Amino acid sequence: MRAVDIIRKKRDAAELSRQEIEFLIEGVTHDRIPDYQLAAWLMAVVWRGMKRSELASLTEAMLHSGVVLDFSDLPGAKVDKHSTGGVGDKTSLVVAPIVAAAGLYVPMISGRGLGHTGGTLDKLESIPGFNVNLSLQEFRRVLEACHCGLIGQTPEIAPADKRLYALRDVTSTVESPYLICASIMSKKMAEGIDALVLDVKTGDGAFMKKQADAENLAELMVETGTRMGKKIVALITDMEQPLGYKVGNALEVEECIEILDGRGPEDLLELSLELSAWMFVLGNRTKTGAEGKKLAAEMIASGRARDTFREIVRLQGGDPRVVDDPTRLPRARHQAQVHAKRAGYITTIHCEQVGVASMMLGGGREKKDDAVDSAVGLVLEKKTGDPVQPGETLCTVHYNLDERLVHSVELLEESFEIGPAAPPASPLVRKIIGAP
Amino acid sequence: MRAVDIIRKKRDAAELSRQEIEFLIEGVTHDRIPDYQLAAWLMAVVWRGMKRSELASLTEAMLHSGVVLDFSDLPGAKVDKHSTGGVGDKTSLVVAPIVAAAGLYVPMISGRGLGHTGGTLDKLESIPGFNVNLSLQEFRRVLEACHCGLIGQTPEIAPADKRLYALRDVTSTVESPYLICASIMSKKMAEGIDALVLDVKTGDGAFMKKQADAENLAELMVETGTRMGKKIVALITDMEQPLGYKVGNALEVEECIEILDGRGPEDLLELSLELSAWMFVLGNRTKTGAEGKKLAAEMIASGRARDTFREIVRLQGGDPRVVDDPTRLPRARHQAQVHAKRAGYITTIHCEQVGVASMMLGGGREKKDDAVDSAVGLVLEKKTGDPVQPGETLCTVHYNLDERLVHSVELLEESFEIGPAAPPASPLVRKIIGAP
Repeated sequence: MRAVDIIRKKRDAAELSRQEIEFLIEGVTHDRIPDYQLAAWLMAVVWRGMKRSELASLTEAMLHSGVVLDFSDLPGAKVDKHSTGGVGDKTSLVVAPIVAAAGLYVPMISGRGLGHTGGTLDKLESIPGFNVNLSLQEFRRVLEACHCGLIGQTPEIAPADKRLYALRDVTSTVESPYLICASIMSKKMAEGIDALVLDVKTGDGAFMKKQADAENLAELMVETGTRMGKKIVALITDMEQPLGYKVGNALEVEECIEILDGRGPEDLLELSLELSAWMFVLGNRTKTGAEGKKLAAEMIASGRARDTFREIVRLQGGDPRVVDDPTRLPRARHQAQVHAKRAGYITTIHCEQVGVASMMLGGGREKKDDAVDSAVGLVLEKKTGDPVQPGETLCTVHYNLDERLVHSVELLEESFEIGPAAPPASPLVRKIIGAP
Repeated sequence: MRAVDIIRKKRDAAELSRQEIEFLIEGVTHDRIPDYQLAAWLMAVVWRGMKRSELASLTEAMLHSGVVLDFSDLPGAKVDKHSTGGVGDKTSLVVAPIVAAAGLYVPMISGRGLGHTGGTLDKLESIPGFNVNLSLQEFRRVLEACHCGLIGQTPEIAPADKRLYALRDVTSTVESPYLICASIMSKKMAEGIDALVLDVKTGDGAFMKKQADAENLAELMVETGTRMGKKIVALITDMEQPLGYKVGNALEVEECIEILDGRGPEDLLELSLELSAWMFVLGNRTKTGAEGKKLAAEMIASGRARDTFREIVRLQGGDPRVVDDPTRLPRARHQAQVHAKRAGYITTIHCEQVGVASMMLGGGREKKDDAVDSAVGLVLEKKTGDPVQPGETLCTVHYNLDERLVHSVELLEESFEIGPAAPPASPLVRKIIGAP
């Protein structure tokens, strides 16, 4: 078998066999196929797409390029949740403790932020001492102790994805739904889970701007996971404006603690309950979504989710006092306000631009190796549909470096559109795919 | 400017600017862009194609990646001919001496055979001592002395093409008409010529099996060359069966000497005269094609073309006695016959397969670095339309190694199809593109 022939087949829109895909991915893992052949193949996949059977072979080959965790000895369903990424998208830090508090196991391997989107690991690392780089043995110990662990991808998990992802990033071959699906699902299936709830974002602040693209990706992921014997549900959710009010790593942790305290913004609470409910249903903890939401709300009301979160922080080396006193989180030195220039209603918040503004402050990464400033970010004071008066604050910017402020403020000023009437409210969960 | 953005633009079917293409090709030449980004870009070009303006920018950037020869001080038109490659396709060795003998200059930079096709350099190297690796200074001296030089690509000529071609070969991105056009035309335009006659082969033994593909490539090359201020004509010619009777390096040189002797096969003579005639017309040596053919025939009849060929051989270090005594060419040790199994007419000769059979004997290369055996090959005894009796010889195989014979003979036996009636004769020149 030769890589050049496999590239040609895909170029000519032929279907690759399981053997051919395994040959490729073994070549990726063991460095037997050079980057330039992989790059040509990746572009041919962007061009030609994949049949469902090819996608399943690819995902499985990438999964088995590394360690597949096995938590079958732990008594209870193992469930996880994955989001395709957005702005202010912080539900993992709420959902994981809720679901773990109710007795299921949540072995969550997350990613970092890139571009305008945030990442769970960056948020967690804003908690002083929190260590996301646990070994797989330490991960298991934390999971056993508190039913949840929150770590980053280790070198043992799906190494083929690691190499392919780095290559996609520099060859403009990221945006294939097939490659996105295989990348996500190979890593998630390595967690040793029984079920997965996918939060596929769509709208201006998401990678998939169009709902049809989000639905297509969701269907691919649901089908691929189901073929691999897992229970999968995908929620298509709105990312036309940031989720919650706070954007930025420490600020988002703070907002999650508000939710676990029984306060916090309605949209964030609502989506967290919804996602938790689906995890309960797929993990056989409740029969219906309604019961699941009720159980999730109870976990918050009883303080058990907050206790679990405190325990996760402690077990992963973080300062558990943060959970009861969020002022212990890093704080930016300065604040600045963005004001409304006229009266009316917020008709649109350009969500990607808000994400870029936070990145510009130092809260995110333009390139993969950029350092992140945990403290900076912004707090929206108004969201879509809210009435405003001239001079009212639209958002507060938390910043450390003056030279980073100007451009962010400009972006934020342009991000809010004000019109004569409030737009109709749009639902947070637009569609559910793969519901049992 | 970043390569990743240029890849993305091409992936999304946007038109690249001259600056972007120059940035890419400078990155190729100076090793500033890694192979994997070039590979992704090449596949995106195979996918999306190019606008004519992009193709012109690409060809010019590749041309100017190296030395562009200047023979403007030589008194007379500089013309060349290029074939896209076929089986038994040996006209260069006939046409170059004819045109040089008539006073034009033919600075011909040729290639080697690959796969089922032969290459001019391999044929020339079957002449004992013939050196195709002249420096550009030596090339000029030979050209001045006898109006023709026949060499291989030097490191100074279009180095960007060299790197890109090697990469295309291993990434299944060879077969884009845009990339083929830029590769050929950048090298040919570096020869310092005023005019170029293209012999674009089509049919089973050509790279372009379909005439429409050959015409498309021809049109791209004619337009690109014309935009660059050169006179270009492309002949779409038949490659459904080998040209002439002989296939294999020394055997093909022998057949060319037959033509220069005033003998030799009709189709080879006809095409050689036609190509020479167009070179005369574009080089302002004759007014019409008919006059050009007459002049070419005179060059043969007078022995002047043969004298010129003898002189080229001598000046490039080869044994000039070969021209008068072709038995001095290398000879294979053994011969074997392929016989007809039934009576009828030859309806088809699977031309690519005949080329592969010759390659298998050692006459060609499967991979670029394979050594070539000059002596081996085959001589067709029958061509399409000829009547045959059972047991009659269809072709004679010239071989050195027994273990290579069997598979070649099998291929050759399958290559000849015999039917009850002769097929209608098909014209050698199917179409002319860009005629003035």
